[in-house]
Amino acid sequence: MELERVAFFSDAVIAIAITLLVVELSIPAATEDVGAALLDRWPQILSFILSFLVIGIFWRAHHRIFRYIAGVDELLITINLLFLMCVAFLPFPTAVLGNHDSSRASVVFYAASIGATGAVLAATWQYVVHAGLLNDRADPRVVRYITRRSLVTPLCFLGSIPFAFINPRLATFLWFVPLGLLAVINLRHQRS
Amino acid sequence: MELERVAFFSDAVIAIAITLLVVELSIPAATEDVGAALLDRWPQILSFILSFLVIGIFWRAHHRIFRYIAGVDELLITINLLFLMCVAFLPFPTAVLGNHDSSRASVVFYAASIGATGAVLAATWQYVVHAGLLNDRADPRVVRYITRRSLVTPLCFLGSIPFAFINPRLATFLWFVPLGLLAVINLRHQRS
Amino acid sequence: MELERVAFFSDAVIAIAITLLVVELSIPAATEDVGAALLDRWPQILSFILSFLVIGIFWRAHHRIFRYIAGVDELLITINLLFLMCVAFLPFPTAVLGNHDSSRASVVFYAASIGATGAVLAATWQYVVHAGLLNDRADPRVVRYITRRSLVTPLCFLGSIPFAFINPRLATFLWFVPLGLLAVINLRHQRS
Amino acid sequence: MELERVAFFSDAVIAIAITLLVVELSIPAATEDVGAALLDRWPQILSFILSFLVIGIFWRAHHRIFRYIAGVDELLITINLLFLMCVAFLPFPTAVLGNHDSSRASVVFYAASIGATGAVLAATWQYVVHAGLLNDRADPRVVRYITRRSLVTPLCFLGSIPFAFINPRLATFLWFVPLGLLAVINLRHQRS
Repeated sequence: MELERVAFFSDAVIAIAITLLVVELSIPAATEDVGAALLDRWPQILSFILSFLVIGIFWRAHHRIFRYIAGVDELLITINLLFLMCVAFLPFPTAVLGNHDSSRASVVFYAASIGATGAVLAATWQYVVHAGLLNDRADPRVVRYITRRSLVTPLCFLGSIPFAFINPRLATFLWFVPLGLLAVINLRHQRS
Repeated sequence: MELERVAFFSDAVIAIAITLLVVELSIPAATEDVGAALLDRWPQILSFILSFLVIGIFWRAHHRIFRYIAGVDELLITINLLFLMCVAFLPFPTAVLGNHDSSRASVVFYAASIGATGAVLAATWQYVVHAGLLNDRADPRVVRYITRRSLVTPLCFLGSIPFAFINPRLATFLWFVPLGLLAVINLRHQRS
Repeated sequence: MELERVAFFSDAVIAIAITLLVVELSIPAATEDVGAALLDRWPQILSFILSFLVIGIFWRAHHRIFRYIAGVDELLITINLLFLMCVAFLPFPTAVLGNHDSSRASVVFYAASIGATGAVLAATWQYVVHAGLLNDRADPRVVRYITRRSLVTPLCFLGSIPFAFINPRLATFLWFVPLGLLAVINLRHQRS
Repeated sequence: MELERVAFFSDAVIAIAITLLVVELSIPAATEDVGAALLDRWPQILSFILSFLVIGIFWRAHHRIFRYIAGVDELLITINLLFLMCVAFLPFPTAVLGNHDSSRASVVFYAASIGATGAVLAATWQYVVHAGLLNDRADPRVVRYITRRSLVTPLCFLGSIPFAFINPRLATFLWFVPLGLLAVINLRHQRS
């Protein structure tokens, strides 16, 4: 029941954060050309979609981790809370990126925020594995598989930061790598 | 348990999106004639009510689909996430429509957003049927019934877009067709 | 399971609406005297507290109704959705009242919104009773008790509207009657 | 089931309040130097983190209390609703503190809000203990442990208020005491 309530609370926070992303989207009430104002909001809509997909990936990863957990201890609850804090923070960098999509600072801020969130989730999994909190459904193959998956998002986003100093656009292209990589890992896992 | 957590997450996102619609409603803090300011907000209140009803219809349709699902696979979770992204996006076109109710662009944007959401939900059902994810409560009659229902909302809203180019008001009238049509389909189903 | 998912969705919408009330509270970022700005927000904090308590009463009433329901049908889901729409709307009249606490229009708008919400909830209960959806825990005494309770809030708030035309303050005093009345009904019920 | 629905509703309200904290974070859409604007938001990000951790501590405390409850009565539901009202209010003092971090009034307002929330939660526990609502897992040692824990946060925050009149910064340093103290109590409890 303990485990269930933690899973439920996590799902709720993730669901709220993913839905709050829309709050940043708006056009001026006094605008006369609505069509032009909407086209103008394209970068914000794109950053909404990107963040929705990334948080969706985090939700599924969190989901996957909790499937193999036998029970929770105080430290796991604390690490999980840190992860939720990172997720709850994401609507802010999303809004900054949507409003300033060509700015180096906003690209770095976004990449660092997503990367940190992914790193905390990867650390959660490492803690579960090494503190002996796994249940008996978790065989070594599954552990390796989840470990590999959990590294993709933080490495791609943190790794894109140096490229942002060459060209912010270049960094944003690198963010779409995780989606492709995760699909490949997924395919290889389902075959084996 | 897998299925349950996906259903729970979906319910949470839909509940948040449907409740966030109210955030757009406000009157200027400095107004002197509150009564006049409220009457002035009539189009926004109407678009709040319309979106609430439409998202409510989506929730019930989602609900109905999940009643006949035996289990989830990776692709279903992905399609479902796309549906949730569309639902989470709806407060934005609702606010645009409320502020610019006579603009062609906002009417087309609203109809396209609702239509796309309904189309993704209809695709979810088609995937469930053809990937063999149905449980044994789903007889052919139920499958046909849900298929027919799932097409009503996307066809009405996407079909209203050409009419918006003749007259935006005309398109908005067409949106009330789904409510009537769904009631008729419902009645015929309950009789048989 | 059907019944459970409807109860869960209702709880989620009510929880979100009750928590969104705070979004309207703010002081100008540029203010120099924070203490004075906070005192200035007193009417908004009061309307936050009032709406929180009233929605809390609605939640408990909804809760109580669902304890005696054996199952849901299409019409009950529709009426329940109307109730949720009213609840989700309440942050708007709360914000209007907080910003314009001495305006007759905002007092009438608030009283009408709360009164309508309570009336839809009372109608929900009447539907449950007359459509034969009660479970076997619902004896006639319980039915009478819940019927009586469900009328208190709508009658007090709708009944306060004429008084608002004499004096808006007078109407707001009348709103505190339900809290007292509900306590009395409660006490008499627990004794018997 | 009663107990479960109250626990669920509480979790939902806490999850929403903790996630709504982010809504206050924003930078001007028209800013040219995004990096400088983000650095400028440092106090708001810090108050986001502080409030997230404090609400997280409240969630775990609430969680802990409900683990030892056998059932709920009307009064417990009412006290719990008061606690939820306090939690739902917290995004407001958080935003005020973030925007006016050196103001005495905002520091006092924040400390009083957190302190009051903690005091209501401590009162909830006292009510549970003295109204005989404990289940059989609650031995005297657990009761003492939770009582002690529940006093730390309200005493630290309410106790910091006089220091705010000497120096607002001094009070904010005192807020970090609970985190340390709770860790010590925790450690001693796990050893015994």
